[in-house]
Amino acid sequence: MDHEPKLREEQDSLGTLQIPDEVYYGIMTERVRKNFGRITGWNLSEHLPHYLYCMAGLKKACAITNGKIGALDGQIVSAICQAAEELMDGRLQVSIPIDLVANGTPGNMSVNEIIANRANEILTGHKGNDLVHPNTHVNMGQSTNDVHPSGLKLALYLTIQELLPKINDLESILTYKAEQFKDVVKVGRTCLQDALPITIGQQFSGYQSFLHRQYQEIAQTAQELLVLPLGGTAIGTCVGTFPGYVEQVCDEVAAIFDLPVTQAENLFDAFQSADTFIRVSASLKSLATGLARMAKDLMFMSSGPQAGIGEITIPAIQPGSSIMPGKVNPVVFMAMVDIAHQVCGQDVTVTMQVEGEGDNLELQLYLNMASNALFQSCTMLQHFLPVLGSCISGIEANRERCQHEAEWSPAMATIISAIYGYPMGSKVAKEALREHKTVKQVTVEMGLLTADEAEQLLNPLAMAHYLEHMEAIFAKKKQVAIQA
Amino acid sequence: MDHEPKLREEQDSLGTLQIPDEVYYGIMTERVRKNFGRITGWNLSEHLPHYLYCMAGLKKACAITNGKIGALDGQIVSAICQAAEELMDGRLQVSIPIDLVANGTPGNMSVNEIIANRANEILTGHKGNDLVHPNTHVNMGQSTNDVHPSGLKLALYLTIQELLPKINDLESILTYKAEQFKDVVKVGRTCLQDALPITIGQQFSGYQSFLHRQYQEIAQTAQELLVLPLGGTAIGTCVGTFPGYVEQVCDEVAAIFDLPVTQAENLFDAFQSADTFIRVSASLKSLATGLARMAKDLMFMSSGPQAGIGEITIPAIQPGSSIMPGKVNPVVFMAMVDIAHQVCGQDVTVTMQVEGEGDNLELQLYLNMASNALFQSCTMLQHFLPVLGSCISGIEANRERCQHEAEWSPAMATIISAIYGYPMGSKVAKEALREHKTVKQVTVEMGLLTADEAEQLLNPLAMAHYLEHMEAIFAKKKQVAIQA
Amino acid sequence: MDHEPKLREEQDSLGTLQIPDEVYYGIMTERVRKNFGRITGWNLSEHLPHYLYCMAGLKKACAITNGKIGALDGQIVSAICQAAEELMDGRLQVSIPIDLVANGTPGNMSVNEIIANRANEILTGHKGNDLVHPNTHVNMGQSTNDVHPSGLKLALYLTIQELLPKINDLESILTYKAEQFKDVVKVGRTCLQDALPITIGQQFSGYQSFLHRQYQEIAQTAQELLVLPLGGTAIGTCVGTFPGYVEQVCDEVAAIFDLPVTQAENLFDAFQSADTFIRVSASLKSLATGLARMAKDLMFMSSGPQAGIGEITIPAIQPGSSIMPGKVNPVVFMAMVDIAHQVCGQDVTVTMQVEGEGDNLELQLYLNMASNALFQSCTMLQHFLPVLGSCISGIEANRERCQHEAEWSPAMATIISAIYGYPMGSKVAKEALREHKTVKQVTVEMGLLTADEAEQLLNPLAMAHYLEHMEAIFAKKKQVAIQA
Amino acid sequence: MDHEPKLREEQDSLGTLQIPDEVYYGIMTERVRKNFGRITGWNLSEHLPHYLYCMAGLKKACAITNGKIGALDGQIVSAICQAAEELMDGRLQVSIPIDLVANGTPGNMSVNEIIANRANEILTGHKGNDLVHPNTHVNMGQSTNDVHPSGLKLALYLTIQELLPKINDLESILTYKAEQFKDVVKVGRTCLQDALPITIGQQFSGYQSFLHRQYQEIAQTAQELLVLPLGGTAIGTCVGTFPGYVEQVCDEVAAIFDLPVTQAENLFDAFQSADTFIRVSASLKSLATGLARMAKDLMFMSSGPQAGIGEITIPAIQPGSSIMPGKVNPVVFMAMVDIAHQVCGQDVTVTMQVEGEGDNLELQLYLNMASNALFQSCTMLQHFLPVLGSCISGIEANRERCQHEAEWSPAMATIISAIYGYPMGSKVAKEALREHKTVKQVTVEMGLLTADEAEQLLNPLAMAHYLEHMEAIFAKKKQVAIQA
Repeated sequence: MDHEPKLREEQDSLGTLQIPDEVYYGIMTERVRKNFGRITGWNLSEHLPHYLYCMAGLKKACAITNGKIGALDGQIVSAICQAAEELMDGRLQVSIPIDLVANGTPGNMSVNEIIANRANEILTGHKGNDLVHPNTHVNMGQSTNDVHPSGLKLALYLTIQELLPKINDLESILTYKAEQFKDVVKVGRTCLQDALPITIGQQFSGYQSFLHRQYQEIAQTAQELLVLPLGGTAIGTCVGTFPGYVEQVCDEVAAIFDLPVTQAENLFDAFQSADTFIRVSASLKSLATGLARMAKDLMFMSSGPQAGIGEITIPAIQPGSSIMPGKVNPVVFMAMVDIAHQVCGQDVTVTMQVEGEGDNLELQLYLNMASNALFQSCTMLQHFLPVLGSCISGIEANRERCQHEAEWSPAMATIISAIYGYPMGSKVAKEALREHKTVKQVTVEMGLLTADEAEQLLNPLAMAHYLEHMEAIFAKKKQVAIQA
Repeated sequence: MDHEPKLREEQDSLGTLQIPDEVYYGIMTERVRKNFGRITGWNLSEHLPHYLYCMAGLKKACAITNGKIGALDGQIVSAICQAAEELMDGRLQVSIPIDLVANGTPGNMSVNEIIANRANEILTGHKGNDLVHPNTHVNMGQSTNDVHPSGLKLALYLTIQELLPKINDLESILTYKAEQFKDVVKVGRTCLQDALPITIGQQFSGYQSFLHRQYQEIAQTAQELLVLPLGGTAIGTCVGTFPGYVEQVCDEVAAIFDLPVTQAENLFDAFQSADTFIRVSASLKSLATGLARMAKDLMFMSSGPQAGIGEITIPAIQPGSSIMPGKVNPVVFMAMVDIAHQVCGQDVTVTMQVEGEGDNLELQLYLNMASNALFQSCTMLQHFLPVLGSCISGIEANRERCQHEAEWSPAMATIISAIYGYPMGSKVAKEALREHKTVKQVTVEMGLLTADEAEQLLNPLAMAHYLEHMEAIFAKKKQVAIQA
Repeated sequence: MDHEPKLREEQDSLGTLQIPDEVYYGIMTERVRKNFGRITGWNLSEHLPHYLYCMAGLKKACAITNGKIGALDGQIVSAICQAAEELMDGRLQVSIPIDLVANGTPGNMSVNEIIANRANEILTGHKGNDLVHPNTHVNMGQSTNDVHPSGLKLALYLTIQELLPKINDLESILTYKAEQFKDVVKVGRTCLQDALPITIGQQFSGYQSFLHRQYQEIAQTAQELLVLPLGGTAIGTCVGTFPGYVEQVCDEVAAIFDLPVTQAENLFDAFQSADTFIRVSASLKSLATGLARMAKDLMFMSSGPQAGIGEITIPAIQPGSSIMPGKVNPVVFMAMVDIAHQVCGQDVTVTMQVEGEGDNLELQLYLNMASNALFQSCTMLQHFLPVLGSCISGIEANRERCQHEAEWSPAMATIISAIYGYPMGSKVAKEALREHKTVKQVTVEMGLLTADEAEQLLNPLAMAHYLEHMEAIFAKKKQVAIQA
Repeated sequence: MDHEPKLREEQDSLGTLQIPDEVYYGIMTERVRKNFGRITGWNLSEHLPHYLYCMAGLKKACAITNGKIGALDGQIVSAICQAAEELMDGRLQVSIPIDLVANGTPGNMSVNEIIANRANEILTGHKGNDLVHPNTHVNMGQSTNDVHPSGLKLALYLTIQELLPKINDLESILTYKAEQFKDVVKVGRTCLQDALPITIGQQFSGYQSFLHRQYQEIAQTAQELLVLPLGGTAIGTCVGTFPGYVEQVCDEVAAIFDLPVTQAENLFDAFQSADTFIRVSASLKSLATGLARMAKDLMFMSSGPQAGIGEITIPAIQPGSSIMPGKVNPVVFMAMVDIAHQVCGQDVTVTMQVEGEGDNLELQLYLNMASNALFQSCTMLQHFLPVLGSCISGIEANRERCQHEAEWSPAMATIISAIYGYPMGSKVAKEALREHKTVKQVTVEMGLLTADEAEQLLNPLAMAHYLEHMEAIFAKKKQVAIQA
């Protein structure tokens, strides 16, 4: 038949297999494809593009180092480097049919095989292992056990670098909104009960500050990902490397990626442990749960339109109900909560993976699901933050409603406590509630403040900006004390 | 010195130890006390009273069975039974200084030692192992591996039996409130946005139904705890038992506890697995998270007092703020949420314990923290449900506010959709929102319903009890269709 | 340009949009696509095929019911039914660009739109809403709030039905292996320390029993998914349905899917709660963690090849190392652990979703991530179980090694305890360990058993099948007692 | 009656209560005791001693500051300071019957009440609020919302300071063991399969390095706990403070505790967020799971005594079985795993608390269970680490067994790969396995190395210290290359 694909035979320690000659991957990849098939539906080349990029860069760094120390022939070094670069810049597009649940040695070997086949092709015009062998040459001085976690860590680092500017963008939006709402005063709430006045600007400045801190935390935690076990080969003893390699290889990696990559101080620890992933996951969880908290605040404030809190209005981006006409739901905020819950679940997966399962010894085994979980959390957040930012940009405040509420909070009596002591504050608050009056009214009626004083001291916006107005309160307190 | 306590020497395979002669426990317990000291601060005799009770009951059942089959002397059987009964009914009060993190063999052995010492005392007037040995006699035909999980399961079963009536009591309170609020109509809310009318009675009937189902689920799942590995001794092969014991021992247990206890069909599975604990934990988690959900609904509805939703008022049981006078917080509902989060955390502990850690083989090892977690979840809920019930009992509805809200919901236009199709419903809802009118007003103004029809068909309480009024809607729809 | 796709304009309450006329979905779907884009990368039509199938089936059931009660014109009923059937059987292939994080109303509406456009096409030859409107007709008597959870539940039920036979297949493999290894005796282990003898057949019979129970648990729990909130429309009050519909609609669903579907007894509860998902997740978690436990047992037993436990050999399906030649790893068992950890993480996501977030009130809001998590857990397990089964099928036992180990276990002294009491057993065990002898040797040397008795009573295989040999032990014990 | 306790009456906004005059706490505490009773069984004064200490210190700092700025009378300042100091140094011993689930305002108020009553007593000779009022004076310039989280954070900081030296001690033990075992070579294992040689010293140096890093991480993360919301009062706006207080109060706190305490830069953020708790929990989780991993490694290595791995022997501290004589279990390592699982469960509780529940707005509400969870995790670890250290101290290595294993690992062929390429290494490994020979034997038989070379290059200890011996390998590789 015309369409019968050309096959090539490849061999390994378990035997031989026929592989379509058009693919660059080799016998190991093919075995894994047959053994596992599709399990999670997440596939190495499509779902972990940064991993492929980073592994290729690592292979290049190793080849260069091996060349420099005289362990690898210059021609082979060049061919490996060219193949790796083609993989990095997308000129060599490959599809690797390895389900992420089977990653580990398969991931490293698929990259070894692809680079070996391409390097052979460069040198000889055909694929195969006659001049460049995936293990002997491409994997020289390496083991899956040091190069694969290094690739995962670098890939995760790069993924996080894509998330960081989205955090920054969202912070900018919140800074803008904090300014926009700086004089919209409303009732504050603690335990969902009416508390002292606050401006929506102050509230949003809190969110902005939170994002600012998360950016710093995530950026700082991500630096840990640049400490690599590379050079330790199979178990941290560096067996299989040649003189000079262990000292130099991380510098080559740093040069290729232009990142401050270093080698772990204690390689045995670096092989045994994956606690960095716990902290990275915690930093993403901190971001996600904080944004979910903010989203729920905003859902509460935008409840209504007629019978809810109605302090803010969010943009109507799609109809909210298939049966109730006119209903618009806070779908973006709800999606934020959904995403946070997924990130929290993934954190448990990461934790269980990092703890491992009684059979780690010289190597942290369970990195696949841990890293998949982190990639997924990071990617979801990265994609979603602009959607969230767009929704927040469109928030409008309902100033009259906010102002009205603030006037009525019985917690305004806190000022009376400050001046006359807590029991008097308490008396005023109870009276206000019983008589359905504002604290201001009751205060004047009880002769505790003159109408003018009450107007000044119990003004909600002034109370929200209390530090600028506290002298007047203190003066009144001292006056009362003297009279007493 | 007068106060120098009398000591007795005990011996085991690791050597001898001096123990205060006044205590009933023996050398193993003393070793554990010295080895572990206080870790969690939870101690076997104080924090797991049901466990002690159940272990004593199991020891009695085993002694009786061993007596019946002729493996244990009648006098020893009697003494063991008497000692076990004294432990069960509290006549023999003991303090066992074993931190729960060290439980397992220590728990079983402490009971063996206490019963052996007491049985010796009964027979000889002094403590010691000369006539009754903790391993040879009290533990005859048993291993910690079958008797300890059996004791934990029975103890957990009994703890759950104490929780169940509290669920029932709370259901009764909700049934009462559902009746009390059956005609208090308010706006329903989905996604926190105004939806169709609902009565608070309907809402509470949902909570009541939820509790009814949880009772059934928990009661049913708890039955799994009565399937015991007892008889399998160390690894399920029953080594160390004597003829007749394996077949009869669970019947004796059933008789002593008056419970339908059975032996696991496949003892190897029963030793390897602890998946029952996952389901028991899930059943408690289902209850706790559902109650937290309810608590949060009620916090939302009681937000205020002036600037919140204010549909209901909850009892003021304690001042809510140290600074804001008059503030009363929904502290009971917040505590419910706290408890649910603890139960959810404990569920993760249970899961990780049940999965075990790569070294289970013939025995599920990590039952200590799993069972502690379940005891704690169960006990917290048991103690808290009456507090929650008392708070719910005191809820009052603010009828006018609820009725007013319901009138204003734009979702009332759903009736117009039903009659005239969704686009017309949508038009009405938009108009109501834009003009700040009720749907009823707009509908009449647009000539879609007469004022009388609108009064009848758009009455919130009638809409909440829609099934009783739907004929009128359908008649109007058919009339409109004919006219069209 | 030739390739400019033909557009059609659609309208909703928020305005109009141009949509490629070739797609069947409509304006709501298009809005969601623009609003959310790609977040999780999981898309409704590709990742939830059962959902689409079930929603179409539900739409058909609703249309038939509405036809029967006279609320929907017969011609429209027929067109909706034909469109729904085409969707169900795959004749109408659609791609729905809705990221699962945005599901809910969008999912229901996309099905409404697809069916409406196709029904119009059937009736008029062109897409559009002129004869069949997505809300008024396709969604008649429904709300996203009742029909979407119903679709999710049915889809999850069907997904579980695909998992069940895989559990059954794995159980069959384990039954076969239990028989194959029924006389391979080895040392049992508890706490990783040598314990009494066990056959690998007994061990595998435990796994088989575990799977048998999981099948039953999962199948039984899944029945809860057939209790639907359908008929309750937006909040459980059934507003928008017409007389007869609520009573009949679930019977139509049952007929179409040939499943014992019922309507929830208390619809308010059914709208408020999603605790069923907690139990379904727990049942999957129980399966996954139990299989991970088994996998880790098998990893331990197959450790080696030279310096490990080496009791069993697992099939070599792919090279295990890129650097260490000849190394073969238990990759399938490690993948099982990975998967279990993912299922456990998803369970936390489910729990957090089910608890909700303080804004549920009349509707359980957070089902998207909960159901995605469950679909993913279920699908991963379904795909992976055959891989696991294949690996287990290929396990071989190393009989000599197992037999040798069993002979050497000091726990054989348990028999001496049974006959002579625990202190004597303890003495024998210590002596065996100190002198590096077997318990059998020591027992004979100490004159406790004759050589013949020792051969018979301390035979590991006989001890593993203890119940068949216990009479001899008991006879010896009685003989010793008489002599004493 | 003689024993009738003297009562005093106290009053608050909800009414009056009789309280035993002997207790220092007041009406609020008494209300909470009656309202909640015992729920978790954890009680403020017994289970959170650091909290009480820190709250007293904070009260002192606030009184001093209020005195300095002229808001509080000098005599009252002195009395409050004396009472606070008595509470801090234990002279004033109090029992506060507040279950931790009810903490929050009750915790702050109980301290206010105790100090007010004691200060009154100092000034007047009797308890009561006539001169010093718990809210007006002791709580001046404070709200539960700023002072309670500040107290929790400081208390948690102090608790962590007690954990840190235990980590340090354990690190020292591991350093000693790493030195002790530096020349005990054994087979390394990855995926539980035989890998390259490693010394137990190298392995333990990895654990030591891990602990070193955890110490640093935990110490650094704990610094975040010294950033306080103090000064923000109820919602971050500082209402109720007097001029100068906000700027100075944290300096007073720093002076009293001699800690670098600072005020949060954005107080709104500090009130809304509790993400610090996520990171603190993650740091404890990282420690606990890493120690569990180590414990499981050691359990594997000490499996036996006859039929397991038997590379190391752990101290026999208590009998391991009630039925199998002579059995000694790794109970300390198993307890470590138990504890890690509890810490992981607590982390989920912390996460859910920090995310909150849709009703946070101006205040992070759910700190009780979060902080309890963290205190418990920290305390368990602190108590347990010395037990773990003691067990590790007693580990002995079985040198001959380790050496023998290492010789037999087929992974020794990695050296052949390095010299002759991977296919030749693979051939050697397969031959060794098939013929049950060591790699050394096969290599010499195949003429790849001379006997002398093999002795030198395939010496396990030299391979473990590969970097010191790699020149010889490289020389051989070059020699082979030249010959080829």
